[in-house]
Amino acid sequence: MSVAALLNDLPFVQHMGIEVVEAADGHAVAELELAEEHTTVPSGPVAHGGVAYALADTVGGAAVISLHHRPTPTVDMRIDYHAPATDDLRAEADVVRDGGSVASADVRVESVDGTHVASARGVFKTGGSDDGGPWGAREDRDLE
Amino acid sequence: MSVAALLNDLPFVQHMGIEVVEAADGHAVAELELAEEHTTVPSGPVAHGGVAYALADTVGGAAVISLHHRPTPTVDMRIDYHAPATDDLRAEADVVRDGGSVASADVRVESVDGTHVASARGVFKTGGSDDGGPWGAREDRDLE
Amino acid sequence: MSVAALLNDLPFVQHMGIEVVEAADGHAVAELELAEEHTTVPSGPVAHGGVAYALADTVGGAAVISLHHRPTPTVDMRIDYHAPATDDLRAEADVVRDGGSVASADVRVESVDGTHVASARGVFKTGGSDDGGPWGAREDRDLE
Amino acid sequence: MSVAALLNDLPFVQHMGIEVVEAADGHAVAELELAEEHTTVPSGPVAHGGVAYALADTVGGAAVISLHHRPTPTVDMRIDYHAPATDDLRAEADVVRDGGSVASADVRVESVDGTHVASARGVFKTGGSDDGGPWGAREDRDLE
Repeated sequence: MSVAALLNDLPFVQHMGIEVVEAADGHAVAELELAEEHTTVPSGPVAHGGVAYALADTVGGAAVISLHHRPTPTVDMRIDYHAPATDDLRAEADVVRDGGSVASADVRVESVDGTHVASARGVFKTGGSDDGGPWGAREDRDLE
Repeated sequence: MSVAALLNDLPFVQHMGIEVVEAADGHAVAELELAEEHTTVPSGPVAHGGVAYALADTVGGAAVISLHHRPTPTVDMRIDYHAPATDDLRAEADVVRDGGSVASADVRVESVDGTHVASARGVFKTGGSDDGGPWGAREDRDLE
Repeated sequence: MSVAALLNDLPFVQHMGIEVVEAADGHAVAELELAEEHTTVPSGPVAHGGVAYALADTVGGAAVISLHHRPTPTVDMRIDYHAPATDDLRAEADVVRDGGSVASADVRVESVDGTHVASARGVFKTGGSDDGGPWGAREDRDLE
Repeated sequence: MSVAALLNDLPFVQHMGIEVVEAADGHAVAELELAEEHTTVPSGPVAHGGVAYALADTVGGAAVISLHHRPTPTVDMRIDYHAPATDDLRAEADVVRDGGSVASADVRVESVDGTHVASARGVFKTGGSDDGGPWGAREDRDLE
């Protein structure tokens, strides 16, 4: 199963209406159609910050997983908000540095009209052993 | 309407199952019951990183709003994940520094059993004017 | 006096051996020659993380100041380290978003051989008034 | 040699006038006397942001090293500035989470009069192998 397909199967990814459309060679793209449930302002479609973040964390993780073909949990992520999210979103992630312990990925989130909505940068755990790190039993899922 | 009640009315806050239980004097508390829709691992209840983040961003914002009684959009936020979120969550936020342009809040997210799940730190815009910043038309909603 | 010249006069900028070579229109470049005093490893020239950070914070601030022509103190900054700094450094900053309260700048730090040493992202205060924010008496220095 | 003594020997730590006074069991304390070379404002002693950062990165690293007794390079660090640094500084670091791949440490920087000057949060690499990560040849220095 492709990395994209596996991620799109996850309950939270579906609950958020996120769709990973591409994830290979350290690069990933995901989309989200803005819906009522994403908003903070009932009078107009401005999305809660958690929407752009969920999209960024998902696509950032997808980019890293596409190089490691196993789960790579987020260690930390920072998101900067540049403009209100008032339309469908598209996010692109690129792995900036890939290491045996951690990888670093950059994410750009924009509106479908090209407006730069947010930027995110995350560190993901790529280390190979179950070493007493944050995520107990690692699942070595087969991601091709 | 109280800050907590106003936030709990927002579509995304409801969609995520977040409940702000307290927000006053620069301190806020919010809770979330872990449900299937939050998970990344269908075989067991481990929440996607976006869940703890949405909770942290909401409760951090609540703490800042409780001092300003108007929307205070997130400028940037960093989250660090310390342990998997496998149970209901509780998050507490405190405003560390409150200024006329920006405020800084710290958030601690934990499982109901006390496990420290994540830490977050955010900067929120408190500046008074509609000054061409990230959020176009500011809504001066009456939050008491 | 140019933004670059004014910054290069600051005691800490000189103490660190940082030279801002360019700062205009939201873009800035700064350089640093690696010296013994920058190192953590006496046996070989690997710089302490504080060196790349000082360079990033300076050049990020320079880029923002070049749009505002007044001091724009750093609210927060994140730096990610990708490779050891073992040679002279060059850093470039671009303002990603400029607002009336805060501005966001991205910085890339590299070795003179092109190796991507670090990335940084910062938020700087651009708000106009002395509003009880972190920096008490603002100095409205004339920066042209 | 103690962790503190080893760090205090490093060229950059000395160049910055930083003194690690304590580093054991995941907790560390460091101090810095504010001097002319730290300032950005010749007319008054306000330190450049790089000063608090260098102090935070050093003491955060010290706290992590005190648990691992080997170099633990910084992967990423975020610093938030709350008040101007206009006096001697003191910083305390605590390891929030320690893992086999990475550790997370929190740092509080304050003036000697107790003013909360800055907060920092960093992730440090604790992974055991030389795995092609950011720092090429790891030096297994004997730190007791």
